[in-house]
Amino acid sequence: MRFVDLIIKKRNNMELTNDEIKFFIRSVIEKSIPDYQVAAMLMAICINSLTERETADLTMAMTYSGKTLDLSSIHGFKIDKHSTGGVADTTTLVVAPLVASLGLPVIKMSGRGLGFTGGTLDKLESIPGFNINIDMDKAIKQVNDINIVIMGQTETLAPADKYIYALRDVTGTVESIPLIASSIMSKKLAGGADGFVLDVKCGKGAFTKNIEDAELLAKEMIKLGKNLGKKVTAVITNMDEPLGMNIGNSLEVIEAIEILKGQKEGSLKDVSLALGAEMLIMGGIAEDTQTALHMLNENIRNRKGLYKFSELIAMQGGNPAVIDNYSLFPQRICKSAIISNKNGYVTEIDALALGKASSFTGAGRKTKEDVIDYGAGIMLKKKVGDKVEKGEILARIFAKDDKRCKIADAIARKAIKIGSEKPEPKPLIYKILK
Amino acid sequence: MRFVDLIIKKRNNMELTNDEIKFFIRSVIEKSIPDYQVAAMLMAICINSLTERETADLTMAMTYSGKTLDLSSIHGFKIDKHSTGGVADTTTLVVAPLVASLGLPVIKMSGRGLGFTGGTLDKLESIPGFNINIDMDKAIKQVNDINIVIMGQTETLAPADKYIYALRDVTGTVESIPLIASSIMSKKLAGGADGFVLDVKCGKGAFTKNIEDAELLAKEMIKLGKNLGKKVTAVITNMDEPLGMNIGNSLEVIEAIEILKGQKEGSLKDVSLALGAEMLIMGGIAEDTQTALHMLNENIRNRKGLYKFSELIAMQGGNPAVIDNYSLFPQRICKSAIISNKNGYVTEIDALALGKASSFTGAGRKTKEDVIDYGAGIMLKKKVGDKVEKGEILARIFAKDDKRCKIADAIARKAIKIGSEKPEPKPLIYKILK
Repeated sequence: MRFVDLIIKKRNNMELTNDEIKFFIRSVIEKSIPDYQVAAMLMAICINSLTERETADLTMAMTYSGKTLDLSSIHGFKIDKHSTGGVADTTTLVVAPLVASLGLPVIKMSGRGLGFTGGTLDKLESIPGFNINIDMDKAIKQVNDINIVIMGQTETLAPADKYIYALRDVTGTVESIPLIASSIMSKKLAGGADGFVLDVKCGKGAFTKNIEDAELLAKEMIKLGKNLGKKVTAVITNMDEPLGMNIGNSLEVIEAIEILKGQKEGSLKDVSLALGAEMLIMGGIAEDTQTALHMLNENIRNRKGLYKFSELIAMQGGNPAVIDNYSLFPQRICKSAIISNKNGYVTEIDALALGKASSFTGAGRKTKEDVIDYGAGIMLKKKVGDKVEKGEILARIFAKDDKRCKIADAIARKAIKIGSEKPEPKPLIYKILK
Repeated sequence: MRFVDLIIKKRNNMELTNDEIKFFIRSVIEKSIPDYQVAAMLMAICINSLTERETADLTMAMTYSGKTLDLSSIHGFKIDKHSTGGVADTTTLVVAPLVASLGLPVIKMSGRGLGFTGGTLDKLESIPGFNINIDMDKAIKQVNDINIVIMGQTETLAPADKYIYALRDVTGTVESIPLIASSIMSKKLAGGADGFVLDVKCGKGAFTKNIEDAELLAKEMIKLGKNLGKKVTAVITNMDEPLGMNIGNSLEVIEAIEILKGQKEGSLKDVSLALGAEMLIMGGIAEDTQTALHMLNENIRNRKGLYKFSELIAMQGGNPAVIDNYSLFPQRICKSAIISNKNGYVTEIDALALGKASSFTGAGRKTKEDVIDYGAGIMLKKKVGDKVEKGEILARIFAKDDKRCKIADAIARKAIKIGSEKPEPKPLIYKILK
């Protein structure tokens, strides 16, 4: 089999056989085909797409391209949660402690952020001392002890996806539903959970800009999971504006803590609880959404979720005192504020642009080698639909120097639009698919 | 400008600006973008194509990516001839000496073969002593002296095309009309001739398999030449079966000599004369096709074309005695014959398959480093439409050992089909476009 013949086949929009897809992934792992050939294949896939059968075969080939985890020594039904990625999207830090506090074992393998904002691991590392490098045996013991672990993904899970994802990022081939679906699901399936609750973001700040594409992606991932006998629920949620009010690493941890304390309402809490409800239902802990939401709200009220988060921090070497003393987080020196120059309503907050602005504060990485400034970021004071008066603060920028503040401020300022009419509210949760 | 953004633009089927195309080609020359990004761009172009404007800009950028030649010190109207490539396609060796003998200066830069058969340079090098490495000053002097030179293309002509062509070959992005057109025309335009006669092959053994694609390619190249004020004529010719009877290096030189001697008729002669006629008309030497063909036939009859070829060989260090003594060419040791096993008509001779078979005899290269066996190849005894009887020889294979003979024989045997009905004849010359 010559790989160039497979490239030509896909270029001509023909279906690749399972053997051909296996050969592709095996060659990637063995490094027996050069980057430029893989790049040409990815572009052909990106433009001509893959059939359902090809996507399933690609996912399987990538799932088994490295080690797969055996979680059978963890008691109970193991649910993994995944978000396709958004701005101010800290649901994991809210929902994982909450469902763990309700008896659902949570073994969450997360990634670092590459792109606009930090990933879950970066956020947790903004807690002084927090260690995400935990080996599997210790992780399993920790779950059996306190029902929760959040750790770095092991290098050996779906290595083919790792290579392909890095190449997609630099060859303009990220936006492909079959490639996104197979990338996410191969990692998830290799991770060994029994079921998955997927938060599929939809809107200006997401891969999938419209509901049709988001639904296609959701359905594709549900099928891929069910092929292996897994339970999968996909929640399609709005990502036009940032989900939470805070963008940045310690800023987002603080917002999650505020929600767990019952001191903050809003979109981040609502989406977190919607995801948590689906996890509780899938795990057999709640019978229906109403009961599940009640249980989650109750564990906010009685602070059991917050306590679980504190336990998690302590168990993984972090300082749980941050929960009651935010000044223990890295401090940002320079601050600036974006002020409204007229009366009206917030009509738009461009999530992508704010993500980019936040990255310029130092909160995100541009290359894998960049060092994150944990304290940097942006704090929104208004959301879309809010009434504002001239002179009111719309957002605050935190960065370690004036220069960064100014660049971020210029981008963020343009991303927040004020109009005279109150905009039609959009749904926060579009659809739940199973 | 980030190259990945240009890739995404083309992936989304949007038009690149001239500045963006210049940036692309400049980056290729400066080696400031990696192969995998160029590969992704080429695949996006291959699938989504280029507009006329983009193709023109790409051609210009590649034409000026290296040195361009100034041929103004050659007296008269300088015409270059180019074939898009076929099997047993030796028209240059017939037509160049003929038109040179009629007063048209011929400065022909040729390439080596990569793929199935040798290129014009490889064929000429099968003449003992023939030297194709001639510097530009000497070439211009030779043209002014004897009206003809056939030489290797200088390394510095259109270097961007050279890099891109090599990458296309291994990334399944060869079959793109804008990429083929810009590749051919950038090299031709950098070569500095005043006009071009292009032989656009059409059929099973060509890049363009059908007349529509061949016409698109022809029109594209005509436009690209005219943009720079050049005269361009494209002759679309049949390439379903091999053009001549001989495939291989010295075998093809011998067939050209036979035609120049007036001892051989057939498709190779007919296409050569059609191209020659267009060259004479473009060069102002003949007024119309009839006159031009008459002049060409006359210079076969009076052997002036043959004499010009002999002069060319002698001037470039070769032994012109080969013309009257074919045994001076490298000899092949092993021979085998393909015999018809039934009565009937030849209904098909697959040019691509025969090219491949010939390559297995040793007549072609599989990698740039392969050494060509000049004496090896295939000699057809029949053409499509010929009547054959059981036991008649269809083709002879020449190779230096039994093993090569057998492999080539097995492929060639399947490529020649015998049926009971005489097939409908196809035109040899489909169309002439200017």
